[in-house]
Amino acid sequence: MSRSINLAVIPGDGIGQEVVAEGLKVLSAVLPQETKLETKEFDFGAKRYHATGQTLTDEDLAELKGYDAILLGAIGDPSVPSGVLERGFLLKLRFAFDHHVNLRPSTLFPGVDSPLAGQPEIDFVVVREGTEGPYTGNGGTIRTGTPQEVATEVSLNTAYGIERVVRDAYARAQARPRKKLTLVHKNNVLVHAGRLWTRIFEQVGAEYPDVTTDYLHVDAATIFLVTQPERFDVIVTDNLFGDIITDLAAAVSGGIGVAASGNINPSREFPSMFEPVHGSAPDIAGQSKADPTATVLSVALLLRHLGYEAEADRIDAAVRADLAGRAGQPARSTVEIGDALAARVSG
Amino acid sequence: MSRSINLAVIPGDGIGQEVVAEGLKVLSAVLPQETKLETKEFDFGAKRYHATGQTLTDEDLAELKGYDAILLGAIGDPSVPSGVLERGFLLKLRFAFDHHVNLRPSTLFPGVDSPLAGQPEIDFVVVREGTEGPYTGNGGTIRTGTPQEVATEVSLNTAYGIERVVRDAYARAQARPRKKLTLVHKNNVLVHAGRLWTRIFEQVGAEYPDVTTDYLHVDAATIFLVTQPERFDVIVTDNLFGDIITDLAAAVSGGIGVAASGNINPSREFPSMFEPVHGSAPDIAGQSKADPTATVLSVALLLRHLGYEAEADRIDAAVRADLAGRAGQPARSTVEIGDALAARVSG
Ligand SMILES: CC(C)[C@H](C(=O)O)[C@@H](O)C(=O)O
Ligand SMILES: CC(C)[C@H](C(=O)O)[C@@H](O)C(=O)O
Repeated sequence: MSRSINLAVIPGDGIGQEVVAEGLKVLSAVLPQETKLETKEFDFGAKRYHATGQTLTDEDLAELKGYDAILLGAIGDPSVPSGVLERGFLLKLRFAFDHHVNLRPSTLFPGVDSPLAGQPEIDFVVVREGTEGPYTGNGGTIRTGTPQEVATEVSLNTAYGIERVVRDAYARAQARPRKKLTLVHKNNVLVHAGRLWTRIFEQVGAEYPDVTTDYLHVDAATIFLVTQPERFDVIVTDNLFGDIITDLAAAVSGGIGVAASGNINPSREFPSMFEPVHGSAPDIAGQSKADPTATVLSVALLLRHLGYEAEADRIDAAVRADLAGRAGQPARSTVEIGDALAARVSG
Repeated sequence: MSRSINLAVIPGDGIGQEVVAEGLKVLSAVLPQETKLETKEFDFGAKRYHATGQTLTDEDLAELKGYDAILLGAIGDPSVPSGVLERGFLLKLRFAFDHHVNLRPSTLFPGVDSPLAGQPEIDFVVVREGTEGPYTGNGGTIRTGTPQEVATEVSLNTAYGIERVVRDAYARAQARPRKKLTLVHKNNVLVHAGRLWTRIFEQVGAEYPDVTTDYLHVDAATIFLVTQPERFDVIVTDNLFGDIITDLAAAVSGGIGVAASGNINPSREFPSMFEPVHGSAPDIAGQSKADPTATVLSVALLLRHLGYEAEADRIDAAVRADLAGRAGQPARSTVEIGDALAARVSG
C-alpha cells in the first residue's frame, strides 16, 4: 500500500462536477493522516470539446499515465453529437490504458427501494470485459448515405483477452463466500466468439475447482435479473452484454444513483479509472440534486484497487448506514449527503 | 381473407408437443365453419437430428414454402450441442423465409403477476429485425483452439433491411392509440450500424408525422423496462438487441408463459412462423404442466397475419378472461387450460 495517492480527477460534464467534489471530500476524510493525497483536475468533456475540438490527445494520455488512479464524474452533453465523447474520450481512455476488467458491483442496500416486488436479496458483481467485443470500433460502411448502404460492426475476441478477464472473475468468485461464477454470452447464436468464451471459461475453471459455475444466454440472464437476482454471485461477460446487463442490474438494485464502477487494469501498468455508472444528467446539473453515493462507492473501489482495504470498508459501511437512515427523511442536497458520508467515515 | 388455412405444424421438443396441441385446439374452435383448416405435422427437432443428423434440409424448406403459415412449439434439447438446432433449424428458417419482422407484443394482463412492484401498466410491442445484425453467422476464428485464437462476429446491417422493418414499425405505431415509436440501439458505440439505423429511422419518420418518436440506448432501455415500462408503445430494434429486450419484456409482463411471437414476412412470399417465446423446458416436458397460453396467443398473431382479425380478437379476449380468473384457483394442466380457452372462443 502506497503512502501517497496521486489522483487524476476528471469531473466532466453535467452533475459530474458536483458528485466528484463529494467523492473527494469523502476520500480526504477516510485516508489516514500519513497518506499524502495529491489531486489534479482535468477539464475533459463537452466544454473542452467545443472550445478546442479535442476529446483526449496523446499528450493527455501521456500525462494521465503518471497517476496512480483516475476519478471520473461523467462525460456527455446533448450539445455534442452522440458517439463523439463516448468514443473519443471514454472508450479511448479504456482502450489506451487497457482497462480490461470493468467491475460493476450490484447490491440492494437495506433502505433502498428496488423496482422489484418483494425486495429480493441482491449482492453480486459483474466483471465485464473492457477492451474487446463490439467496442473496438472495427467495422465500417459502404455506399454511405444511400439506399444501398451496408454497415458492419465487428466484434473482436481473443483468447488472450478473454482469459485474463475470466481469470480475474474466477479469483473474485473464489474470494467470496458463495464462490459462484456465471458466464453470460449468446453462444448458441454468436458461435465463433461463443465457443471461444466457453472454452476458456471451462479451461480456466479447472484451476478453480472450488468455484461453482454455470452458463446463461444473455437473454435468459435478463429474465433472471428481474425474477431471481439472488441467484447471482459473480458474472463474467463480454463488453456489450456487460454494458446491457449492468444497467439492468443497477436498475433492479435501486437505480444508478448507487451504482459504482471501476475500469481496472490489474497489472497497474496504467492507472485504473473509477466512475459512477450514471451519466451526466444535464437536466439536474448545477442544482445540487444529484446523489453522490455512486461516486463515493466508486472511490471505495478505487481505494480497494490501491490496497486501502480498511478505508474502502469504512466507506461501504458509511454508505450502508446513510442509505438505511434515509426512509421518511426529507431529500438532502448533493453536498449534504457528501458531508454526512464524510462525517461517518472520519467518525 | 382466405377460405382455407394450410398450416405446417412443428411441435418440436420438450413441451412443444403439449402446447402446440392446445394451440391447434383453440384454432379449430375459433375458426368459422366454412374455413377449411388443413394441418400437417413435421418432426423437426432433437429426435430427428439424433436419428438422421439433419436439422432442416433444402427439401424441407421447399415443402414448407407451400404452406400459409407455420406454427412452432419449441426447438431445443440438452442432448444437442448448443447452437446446432438454433442455427441449423430456427435461424435457418427465419433467414430462408426472410422473416424480417420479428413481432413480440408485451402486455401485462389483469390477473397476471409482474415481478415489478406496483404492477405497472404494460402494453407495448417490440418489432425486432429478424434477418440481419449479428445473427447472420458471419465471422470466424483463426488459430482455433490455441492460446492465440481470435474469433470475430460480424453484424451486417443494410439500408434495405433496416428500412423495411422500420417502416413496418411506423405503420404499427400509427395504428395504435398512442402512436409512439422508440428506436433502441447503441449508436454511441456501434457507430457504423448506429448511424445507419438512426438515419433511416429519421427518414422514414418523415412519412409518419403523426407518430411520436424517441431514441434509447439499449442499456438505458433495460432500465426503463423495469422502472417505467408504461412509457413504451412500439419499439423497433436490431436482431440482437431485440432478442435481449424481448426476454426482459416478457419477464416484466408476467413471464414467458404468456409471451407470443411472430416471425413475419409481410410480403407473404414465404410463410410466416408463429411461436411462443419460451423454450422447450425439458424439465417439465410430458407432465402437462406447461402453460399453453403463449402458444394460443401466437395462434392469434397467426390469424391476424392471415386476415382473421375477428377470430384473433376472440382469442385475445378469451386469454384475457382466463388469466383474470386464475387468482386463487388451483393450477390446471396444459390440457385443462387449452380446453377452457377453446370453450371460451367457441362460446
Ligand atoms: C457511455 C458509453 C460509451 C458506456 C459504455 O457503453 O460502455 C456506458 O454505457 C457505460 O456503461 O459505461
Ligand atoms: C433460440 C435462439 C436462437 C432465439 C434467438 O436468439 O433469436 C431465441 O432466443 C429467440 O428469441 O427466439
